[in-house]
Amino acid sequence: MGFDHRKYVAFEPVRKTDRRWPDQVIRKAPDWCAVDLRDGNQALVKPMTVAQKTRLFDLLVKVGFKEIEVGFPAASQPDFDFCRRLIEEDRIPSDVYIQVLTQARPELIARTFEAVKGAPNVVVHVYNSTSTVQREKVFRMDREGVKEIAINGARIVKSHADKDPDTNWIFQYSPESFTGTELDYAREVVDAVNDVWRPDQGQPVVINLPATVEMATPNVFADQIEWINDNVRYRDHFRISVHTHNDRGCAVAAAELAVMAGADRVEGTLMGNGERTGNMDLVTMAMNLYSQGVDPRVDLSGMAEITDVVEACTEIATHPRHPYAGELVFTAFSGSHQDAIRKCLAQYQEGDQWEIAYLPIDPRDLGRRYEEVVRINSQSGKGGVAYVLERDYNISMPRWLQIEFAREVQQTAELDGGEVDSETVHRLFGDRYLAVRPEWRLRTYDLHRTDDRVTAVIEFGEDEQRTRLEGEGLGAVEAVAAALEKRHGFQLAVENYDEFALGEGTNANALACIRIQVDGHTHSSAALAEDTTSATLQALLSAVANRVTATDSHKAEKTA
Amino acid sequence: MGFDHRKYVAFEPVRKTDRRWPDQVIRKAPDWCAVDLRDGNQALVKPMTVAQKTRLFDLLVKVGFKEIEVGFPAASQPDFDFCRRLIEEDRIPSDVYIQVLTQARPELIARTFEAVKGAPNVVVHVYNSTSTVQREKVFRMDREGVKEIAINGARIVKSHADKDPDTNWIFQYSPESFTGTELDYAREVVDAVNDVWRPDQGQPVVINLPATVEMATPNVFADQIEWINDNVRYRDHFRISVHTHNDRGCAVAAAELAVMAGADRVEGTLMGNGERTGNMDLVTMAMNLYSQGVDPRVDLSGMAEITDVVEACTEIATHPRHPYAGELVFTAFSGSHQDAIRKCLAQYQEGDQWEIAYLPIDPRDLGRRYEEVVRINSQSGKGGVAYVLERDYNISMPRWLQIEFAREVQQTAELDGGEVDSETVHRLFGDRYLAVRPEWRLRTYDLHRTDDRVTAVIEFGEDEQRTRLEGEGLGAVEAVAAALEKRHGFQLAVENYDEFALGEGTNANALACIRIQVDGHTHSSAALAEDTTSATLQALLSAVANRVTATDSHKAEKTA
Repeated sequence: MGFDHRKYVAFEPVRKTDRRWPDQVIRKAPDWCAVDLRDGNQALVKPMTVAQKTRLFDLLVKVGFKEIEVGFPAASQPDFDFCRRLIEEDRIPSDVYIQVLTQARPELIARTFEAVKGAPNVVVHVYNSTSTVQREKVFRMDREGVKEIAINGARIVKSHADKDPDTNWIFQYSPESFTGTELDYAREVVDAVNDVWRPDQGQPVVINLPATVEMATPNVFADQIEWINDNVRYRDHFRISVHTHNDRGCAVAAAELAVMAGADRVEGTLMGNGERTGNMDLVTMAMNLYSQGVDPRVDLSGMAEITDVVEACTEIATHPRHPYAGELVFTAFSGSHQDAIRKCLAQYQEGDQWEIAYLPIDPRDLGRRYEEVVRINSQSGKGGVAYVLERDYNISMPRWLQIEFAREVQQTAELDGGEVDSETVHRLFGDRYLAVRPEWRLRTYDLHRTDDRVTAVIEFGEDEQRTRLEGEGLGAVEAVAAALEKRHGFQLAVENYDEFALGEGTNANALACIRIQVDGHTHSSAALAEDTTSATLQALLSAVANRVTATDSHKAEKTA
Repeated sequence: MGFDHRKYVAFEPVRKTDRRWPDQVIRKAPDWCAVDLRDGNQALVKPMTVAQKTRLFDLLVKVGFKEIEVGFPAASQPDFDFCRRLIEEDRIPSDVYIQVLTQARPELIARTFEAVKGAPNVVVHVYNSTSTVQREKVFRMDREGVKEIAINGARIVKSHADKDPDTNWIFQYSPESFTGTELDYAREVVDAVNDVWRPDQGQPVVINLPATVEMATPNVFADQIEWINDNVRYRDHFRISVHTHNDRGCAVAAAELAVMAGADRVEGTLMGNGERTGNMDLVTMAMNLYSQGVDPRVDLSGMAEITDVVEACTEIATHPRHPYAGELVFTAFSGSHQDAIRKCLAQYQEGDQWEIAYLPIDPRDLGRRYEEVVRINSQSGKGGVAYVLERDYNISMPRWLQIEFAREVQQTAELDGGEVDSETVHRLFGDRYLAVRPEWRLRTYDLHRTDDRVTAVIEFGEDEQRTRLEGEGLGAVEAVAAALEKRHGFQLAVENYDEFALGEGTNANALACIRIQVDGHTHSSAALAEDTTSATLQALLSAVANRVTATDSHKAEKTA
């Protein structure tokens, strides 16, 4: 058993001297073919019911796929019945081709044509396995024998189609396990099939080159596609399609590089469902194009519906990190990411080119909300905390207070070990900075300005026992601070002090934040009020209250 | 909000005329650095507890990672504490480097050095953001200013390290958001950092180039890496590392092509956990190398333990199609795949090069079993059905019976809609073919051979009312068939007839399968017995019994 790499052989790369694909950029979406109902369905522990298939088919049509492989009707009675149902219930829009897969065997092809009888547009997709391993170990046939199967299949497809000229037929051939097939032989088989079908004489043809198993780095697949592209007959008259699998986790990359190498068409499935590790994910590749300003020619704005339907039909949950679709892919927990996102979004205007750090696309394009972007846990910093308070509660904080408060939020998150929601952040902020003790509640102020001084008189406390203070200074804050110094017998320095006008929809109009220093200790507070002066003076009173309380409890501790 | 691609700008590719990476093949594993405990942890809704971190660290060590990023201690108290714990509890093997991340800021670097004090081997990983967007929108700084941050960080790192010569220091610098940074500027910053660190004078240095956000097809990232590789100073004296993210679903591809382009080292996480769509998956990339006969330099044979620990620590379930690790990735439901796998496995001998259709690697290498490979549902065919009966019950079936029986299994699967387990397949086979009615149970046979004929005498049925028949033919089957024809007054043709000796460990020694035709109808049966003749004659009796019963019930229906 063991873990020994020596039993595996390296894939033989393609020797190329005329490689051009690495200089290409995809500027146009390929034709898409969705194979969810065939390859996707074949790979499920519990294949889809007719109701599930119908739901998924309708979704694929809604999203905008124009070629949809609906099954392998000759191999499965439910696939056959589903195909008939689509046709008889007239569920296929006039611009959509249904595609049906069949092995290149006479009786299966005949049955396949029965299944699609009466459909207006059909891709008949015939295949046989051409790889070395399959020829030698599975079919025990030589190259000629395997080629004959393909040619014979092509002939039978043609003769069935000829009998039914009312349908628009596209013929598709796959040399199955193409990635394991010698390139010159794959070309030979493809040429032989096209010699039967003659795409140059008007028959629409697709040659689909499957990475049935992903066997090498994606650049090798691109080399294979470019080689075929450069060496097949009738190249201008048919479409080259690719169908990649994800065994090495690179199915999307392989399809993208293949399109750069000349492929016209890409087969895949929503969310990449399919045999083993799955197919190329149509959602990811289409969104990759979209994120580069290329029209993907499918509409993925209803991403929640897409994942809902796919989950309901495949009974496989969407991974939270699935590109573009997963729950967490637009979320930043880390402090520096949150900070950068907040700053970029603040500068973004509707209509601008999208350039937001850490967000390759606008979550709103997929029906997601900015609310999910910044979430707070122990990894978050000031940026995230400031962002959620601003976004959800219209509370702006000065940078010094962000740093101080973020530390408190982080401690809470560390203690709880999980996420801290926006409501909790707000509550923490309120408890810590906005709470006003009754005996420190500002009641009235009276400010009198002379040439160079302000005289302030304030009253605070509960009705029965108000405190009245009077002081002088260069401004209101200084005047009240002087009064408080005198009353409590300490030196008080205002370290930071900021006021913000609040947005609409809030009861208060102003927020003030203040940090004072007394005897080397800092005390911060904030206050909401109808006017900025009230807010500021209340914040100052609360900061001093914190100081006094801290000292009292310190004394209490000492005497205890 | 809509779905409008026009707000996105295409990534500007690298113009290259000296591209060499597409001709490269990876023949040696890169150095790995596991960043699960930092990048992975930062991206979790619920960051790991110390117990979870410790468990994951121990796993990473066990798997064989020699560089492990353990946190961002200056930004998080739990990360700081965890780091101290690793060092103080002496949990770091002598050949393992712990790596710690810090922004290039004096107070954070100082705190980072506090966190790692006393560790024998440390990678100090300092970063600052260099991309255009970050410079312009987040930091509002020019190129020089941002470069100064990097140089200053490098200097401070060096001066702290100089004070602690007992630790083996590796210095690592990341121009964060490298993919969004102009290449010439990235080089300028990297050169400036190396001018401080002087890797040519013996200081081990890693320059890590992160695709903080994946912004283009993976070939573009390879071009970027090759460009840097060709244009930086001191290239022979430091390692180039890559750290790719999966925003476009191509993180593994990007890392692989980057190694082809000259990178020496790859950062990633187990199962690809990490910010947003996640990091490059170390498991996939290492297994990709393994599948090509390259020693991955980590031991992934305990894949079940790996996924268990990762799931327990991240609280994210492994996707069933995750390459190499998902539940379904070695499973084939489709008939033709099952058939090919069965045939290839039958020819595979321990010690052979692995070449099995549809199975890029041997599931047993990862602690999986062949039992999971072939599973039966309505998409399965004869190959799969035959495979599970042979594998689990030592029952070999002739091809004609495989086809017939697979159809019955498929019908059952279609009715139930789900998977049919091996036990059910076996029960169906028993009910349909092996059941013997008491009145048709073979009791004795007596065969007498002359020159050219066999005379057979058989007795069958229950003790009280045995039937005795005598017939003649070229062989035993023909002789008994003749006797049965005479008794029932019909013509009987034996269409197919196969006998198998059974493997050890079974009660019966022989299995016989037979298909007869009577009046244009076929009837199949099989029988297990201690000897092949008994099995064959019993199978024949049972097939005739099916015929007689079918006719009787037909008659009964007619008269009713």
